[in-house]
Amino acid sequence: MAEPRSNELMEKIVSLCKRRGFIYQSSEIYGGINGFWDYGPLGAELKRNVKDLWWRHIVHHRDDVAGLEATIIMSPRIWEASGHVDTFSDPMIDCKTCKGRFRADQANEIPCPQKPSKMVSECHGEKTEPRAFNLMFTTHVGPVQDDSSVAYLRPETAQAIFAQFKNVLETSRQKVPFGIAQVGKAFRNEVTPRNYTFRSREFEQMELEYFIKPDEVVEAIQGRVAPAGDGHPGEPQSDWGWQRWHKYWVEERIRFYESIGLPRTTLEEYWQTPEELAHYARATVDILFQFPFGTQELEGIAARSDFDLSQHARCSGKPMAVFDEELRTAWKDLEEPRRQALWQRYHDARYGYLTRSGVDPEAAAAMAKDDADGLAKGNYVPHVIEPSAGVDRLILALIANAFSEVSETDAKGKTETRVIMRFHPRVAPIKVGVLPLLRNKPELVQKAKAVRDLLRPHLTVFYDDGGSIGRRYARQDEAGTPFCVTVDFETLGEKGPELADTVTVRERDTAAQTRVPIAELAAMLIAKTR
Amino acid sequence: MAEPRSNELMEKIVSLCKRRGFIYQSSEIYGGINGFWDYGPLGAELKRNVKDLWWRHIVHHRDDVAGLEATIIMSPRIWEASGHVDTFSDPMIDCKTCKGRFRADQANEIPCPQKPSKMVSECHGEKTEPRAFNLMFTTHVGPVQDDSSVAYLRPETAQAIFAQFKNVLETSRQKVPFGIAQVGKAFRNEVTPRNYTFRSREFEQMELEYFIKPDEVVEAIQGRVAPAGDGHPGEPQSDWGWQRWHKYWVEERIRFYESIGLPRTTLEEYWQTPEELAHYARATVDILFQFPFGTQELEGIAARSDFDLSQHARCSGKPMAVFDEELRTAWKDLEEPRRQALWQRYHDARYGYLTRSGVDPEAAAAMAKDDADGLAKGNYVPHVIEPSAGVDRLILALIANAFSEVSETDAKGKTETRVIMRFHPRVAPIKVGVLPLLRNKPELVQKAKAVRDLLRPHLTVFYDDGGSIGRRYARQDEAGTPFCVTVDFETLGEKGPELADTVTVRERDTAAQTRVPIAELAAMLIAKTR
Repeated sequence: MAEPRSNELMEKIVSLCKRRGFIYQSSEIYGGINGFWDYGPLGAELKRNVKDLWWRHIVHHRDDVAGLEATIIMSPRIWEASGHVDTFSDPMIDCKTCKGRFRADQANEIPCPQKPSKMVSECHGEKTEPRAFNLMFTTHVGPVQDDSSVAYLRPETAQAIFAQFKNVLETSRQKVPFGIAQVGKAFRNEVTPRNYTFRSREFEQMELEYFIKPDEVVEAIQGRVAPAGDGHPGEPQSDWGWQRWHKYWVEERIRFYESIGLPRTTLEEYWQTPEELAHYARATVDILFQFPFGTQELEGIAARSDFDLSQHARCSGKPMAVFDEELRTAWKDLEEPRRQALWQRYHDARYGYLTRSGVDPEAAAAMAKDDADGLAKGNYVPHVIEPSAGVDRLILALIANAFSEVSETDAKGKTETRVIMRFHPRVAPIKVGVLPLLRNKPELVQKAKAVRDLLRPHLTVFYDDGGSIGRRYARQDEAGTPFCVTVDFETLGEKGPELADTVTVRERDTAAQTRVPIAELAAMLIAKTR
Repeated sequence: MAEPRSNELMEKIVSLCKRRGFIYQSSEIYGGINGFWDYGPLGAELKRNVKDLWWRHIVHHRDDVAGLEATIIMSPRIWEASGHVDTFSDPMIDCKTCKGRFRADQANEIPCPQKPSKMVSECHGEKTEPRAFNLMFTTHVGPVQDDSSVAYLRPETAQAIFAQFKNVLETSRQKVPFGIAQVGKAFRNEVTPRNYTFRSREFEQMELEYFIKPDEVVEAIQGRVAPAGDGHPGEPQSDWGWQRWHKYWVEERIRFYESIGLPRTTLEEYWQTPEELAHYARATVDILFQFPFGTQELEGIAARSDFDLSQHARCSGKPMAVFDEELRTAWKDLEEPRRQALWQRYHDARYGYLTRSGVDPEAAAAMAKDDADGLAKGNYVPHVIEPSAGVDRLILALIANAFSEVSETDAKGKTETRVIMRFHPRVAPIKVGVLPLLRNKPELVQKAKAVRDLLRPHLTVFYDDGGSIGRRYARQDEAGTPFCVTVDFETLGEKGPELADTVTVRERDTAAQTRVPIAELAAMLIAKTR
């Protein structure tokens, strides 16, 4: 992992974000609320662009992914099935002396509120034993507040996808392999929100659950399972097993980050060790970014086996198996030893899941046998690959990566340092600044507004006529606007007919200026910002 | 108001929405959760389109509106200032016999759970007096659950805009008049969610707060306040007072609904009577739509005076007044009688607000005098016009309006009724279906996929090669796809060179088919769907 960059850089970023309206503290006029952040005008556009690019990349540009938009409050039984009610918690200790509550694993790092020279673990306060503190926000639905009306704010968007798996399958003309994608808010009552917007209590996720055939089914139909291989495995093939699909999505996600301006060199792949993996996970890769405060996770891509769908099938009593005609046909034609071997492997995996989930061994054996017998009828529970990204931390990564300072010395020898936000044009909040050279010349203003109106149906445009042209360029640089268009006297034809109806296009990153006919402007800027 | 259309129609709509993946019950596999609805693949696209069109219309296509994306959980003091903690409630009665809780104003309509032949108001159960039941969902933030950690899920998106008013003003280069727009989830713990997605407990809003000068300030600067006038008042002018701005936004919002396919004849304007208005509101217009279950509100456009900013200024102690150089200059040049009259009107309005808000008369008089004296320094608290729309009810309106059935009799005399969703192309979830005539001809499939890939960067495309071409058209009609493109043997040049590289474009609403060169396809379809 890379060394943390300086706190100083982080302070500059926080200051810029406030000053230019990327990010504000939530409820700032009331002293704020710890762990909640608002996006100002530029931040809201940046976030819109990122979510829209993800959606287009994952849903629109593929045939095999459908979208979903589920509610934040769902039946609490979903969170019982997923395990969040029982296990999504941090161990906490209470101090009976100061009445504080602390994370047990941080007691060595947190100063005692009454005697800050000592850590909580070594102060004199009388502490309770560690107790599980659930990280889900709790509320009550309906007019009566009691145990029967408890509900949770979703701590992740993924579970809604599993709960609606059958509805989507039946109404979208998809068949396995296919994915369901969702973007939306999630909430975790973090004990210690930190690192600006990186770990906050209200955040947004972009999650894809990509459902695939179990390896036994692939082998039954295709006669083989393609090896995992190295590098990007190319276009999906019907003999891919979970390892290849997992690798595919890791590579696809890295490609996505590169396509919106995070250089490969700022990203790291981290393969979780067997000890780190959740019990149902077969493999998990974290994609990390070198934040100023350290190298931290942007996205996790987990191969989650059939755990989630199986849990919801078991807890809801609604079957989650799919029917596959190809499997039913192929199963008949298998030679007996291979059929037997595949049956056994599928059976053992199901048995393992069931016993780990608390089903007693005898019942689990009967259920696993039923499940494996289902293969002959063409039935199986899909496995899933889950690329799960955090929107807010990606926004923060894009901001940190775009941030740069330049020092310029003017003719009088005065040096000024200013910020340029070098966003990729795809994510930049504003694509084009349109500037009349002077605000007090009606012809320039009128022409500039005509250019603005010409570009506006296609691109986000900021019209600015205030201050010197240099100051306006600097303001757009700070907002990360990749192009500025200036309407000047040449545009009006006052310097000769050959320059009439042309404008100056200035590039943010090079400050290079080129003369472009207005008639070609929209097409050129669209091409450069998509 | 129009007569309700039939329940039968509503049942057909609900059934189609489930069958085609527009809307599912939330948590359906667990028996659902009352008042919560999920959007399936088609519904999620429809909703995306509507929110995106609103944002582009309100934020991108104007110079005078900035966006904001604030958190759902904010400081609870925001909801004290807004009045929601004290007054956002329904009166409820508890029955000590059956332990039920009921809305007091519905006790005559709700059957007793134990003796359904009687209504709650007339059964023998012993009831409590009506008590206020707050409609905000409550939760706790941080590790300790007590009164000090209570927080609310926002019941509207508007208040965040007021709370961040100064931050946006200072970082966005806007000055009054200007607006701040936000789209996002809001939550109300409705006692009786009903009418499908129309009144649900979790919903989404699109709200604009458009800040304007008080009439006294307009008059001081411009020498007059333009009369309200009739019809659309045209482009904003600097002599507009609140009445003209209010009218402008009513007309703009109706135009928006028309632009996405709700005919003017399905909409009604309802001007609230003085008795219906909230105490701070000067005027409120509801835009109603003729839903199958009755004519109901889509959006409210309220002239809210300076109430909201004043409340937050008073409760947070942070000033919300803006400085306006033009006012300061103009004030000096006013003739004394007019200056005196404007001072007095402004003073009286402020005094009225302060006393209604519970400030004692003596203190209110001193504060109002200070406020009115501020005019000479160029300071005032902006007023606001608030167009506030519900996304989910708009989606339901679009679905109800698009729903149509056609009966077709085939050559054998068999009549079949099928659904066509006549969405405006701008909002249609899928813009183009791309269909190879036959799936078992590789040349057709390959060419169709090339057409799909050509269109996909610009439009949402659905590729479908399953079933007869007639069935595939019917499926796209049901999804509301305005255009289908069919790749056939003519496309491949097998019927002569002049038809090579042309495709059939079929229109959903007329079933008309035209032959279009592939080279012209993207531009044509983009033009017809934007």
